[in-house]
Amino acid sequence: MPIVMKGSEVAAAMKEDMVKKVSELKAKGIVPKLAILRVGSRADDLAYEKGAIKKMADIGIECEVHELAQDVGQKDFEAEFNKINSDKSVHGILMFRPLPKNLDENAVLEVIQPHKDSDCMCNANIAKVFSGDLSGYPPCTAQAVIEMLDYYKIDLTGKRVTLVGRSMVVGKPLAMLLLKRNATVTMCHTRTKDLAGTCRGGEILIAAAGKARMITADMVSEGAVVVDVGINVDENGVLCGDVDYDAVEGKTSYISPVPRGVGSITTSVLAKHVLRGAGAQFN
Amino acid sequence: MPIVMKGSEVAAAMKEDMVKKVSELKAKGIVPKLAILRVGSRADDLAYEKGAIKKMADIGIECEVHELAQDVGQKDFEAEFNKINSDKSVHGILMFRPLPKNLDENAVLEVIQPHKDSDCMCNANIAKVFSGDLSGYPPCTAQAVIEMLDYYKIDLTGKRVTLVGRSMVVGKPLAMLLLKRNATVTMCHTRTKDLAGTCRGGEILIAAAGKARMITADMVSEGAVVVDVGINVDENGVLCGDVDYDAVEGKTSYISPVPRGVGSITTSVLAKHVLRGAGAQFN
Repeated sequence: MPIVMKGSEVAAAMKEDMVKKVSELKAKGIVPKLAILRVGSRADDLAYEKGAIKKMADIGIECEVHELAQDVGQKDFEAEFNKINSDKSVHGILMFRPLPKNLDENAVLEVIQPHKDSDCMCNANIAKVFSGDLSGYPPCTAQAVIEMLDYYKIDLTGKRVTLVGRSMVVGKPLAMLLLKRNATVTMCHTRTKDLAGTCRGGEILIAAAGKARMITADMVSEGAVVVDVGINVDENGVLCGDVDYDAVEGKTSYISPVPRGVGSITTSVLAKHVLRGAGAQFN
Repeated sequence: MPIVMKGSEVAAAMKEDMVKKVSELKAKGIVPKLAILRVGSRADDLAYEKGAIKKMADIGIECEVHELAQDVGQKDFEAEFNKINSDKSVHGILMFRPLPKNLDENAVLEVIQPHKDSDCMCNANIAKVFSGDLSGYPPCTAQAVIEMLDYYKIDLTGKRVTLVGRSMVVGKPLAMLLLKRNATVTMCHTRTKDLAGTCRGGEILIAAAGKARMITADMVSEGAVVVDVGINVDENGVLCGDVDYDAVEGKTSYISPVPRGVGSITTSVLAKHVLRGAGAQFN
């Protein structure tokens, strides 16, 4: 049977490390703080926010929520954002997107301080991630995959990694993080011919396509490491990943479940980025 | 025998299209202009500059060279840059890099107007290329490969493309341009295990590693399209590409030579970017 890569184990190890960093920061008189900016109250935003608040509290990071009405005007939105952006006590900003259609996000993304841009919204961070500059702040979900592979000591150097999905929050930035670790990266997507064969070619297969159980047993080679980044609800209302877990697990050496896999690590990465924004150094 | 993809043919077709755009711009009272900013006088900069000046003249684009002494100070360098950047008659800027070590390029890359950033130096353009936003200006050499494949009607949709090299001027941005065309892209590099096998897996093989004749016959599958982006000087002082052309050509369906291949298209892309900066629309 494979080793099941549990998000909770990765998050626990990260927490231990981060709690120390919080102490070091506080000894210097720095109290790390995350500001969450939310416009309206979408259910999934509220769910993520709840998890983020709990995670910050667990680690000792302050957290303040700035809620704006769904129909807030551009001027008031920018004013609230700028207040947070210029507040020296704030070290990281999580702004839920997409914003309501009447708001222009570019106005704030052009001015956000890159060290407060904890989830890689601005061009400066995007360019750093693309160029392999580790001083950047990658999207939390993409970095969560790296944290998981590192925790389970999966060496990436020279490995064939097949990545399904090319979004700007997972696929593309994750490809760059993997390249930085000297993996050989194949990027697949809906238009890929022979997707099954290409997936089988990966010693490590990462699914970030957003399609329920699309990775079937015939797409996985014997002994592969399989990481599932998908979070979907199937036709019966059941939460599931992009990987058909029950059918696939027997072929793998390591596999991450959904739920309780990569998704359990993203708020830990968010916390890490807030700490880095506050000046903490991580290896 | 394969079809030899000649840079001159691609450049000729691009010129025809661009000459029309110049007429259209001039009819609107816009005279497209490129400003070249060169610090010192490295031989390879001077060679490229000569080619760029000739190309702009051929197409009807004005060109002015701003030469600064090798030992210019930061303040004077920035002043010259800002003059060009704010000059409304200038539609594109080519700045040779790397700059001398005493100069900080970030000071100017933070202020360059993105539409004048003809060779993708600034974060705004890098982020656009990464995200697949076609309003960005990719690095000229990366775009030159796309122009060549387009001219020879090589369809990229769903194709397996193997790319050797992961630089910020060719490999990484080219991977994004290929993904945008729905290719399945595998990125290889010096640390890739079984490089030969991975290269053979590509229906299209693009070499941008900067290592003389490293792509040998055993690395090319029968009927592959091979594009050589390398420009190297071998141990005998002979100009050559990354592909061992004589050994490889017999296996290919299409192959680009060095010299007279991709390198002959880069200044055409530069011209196209200047015209786009001046407001010309291309398909």
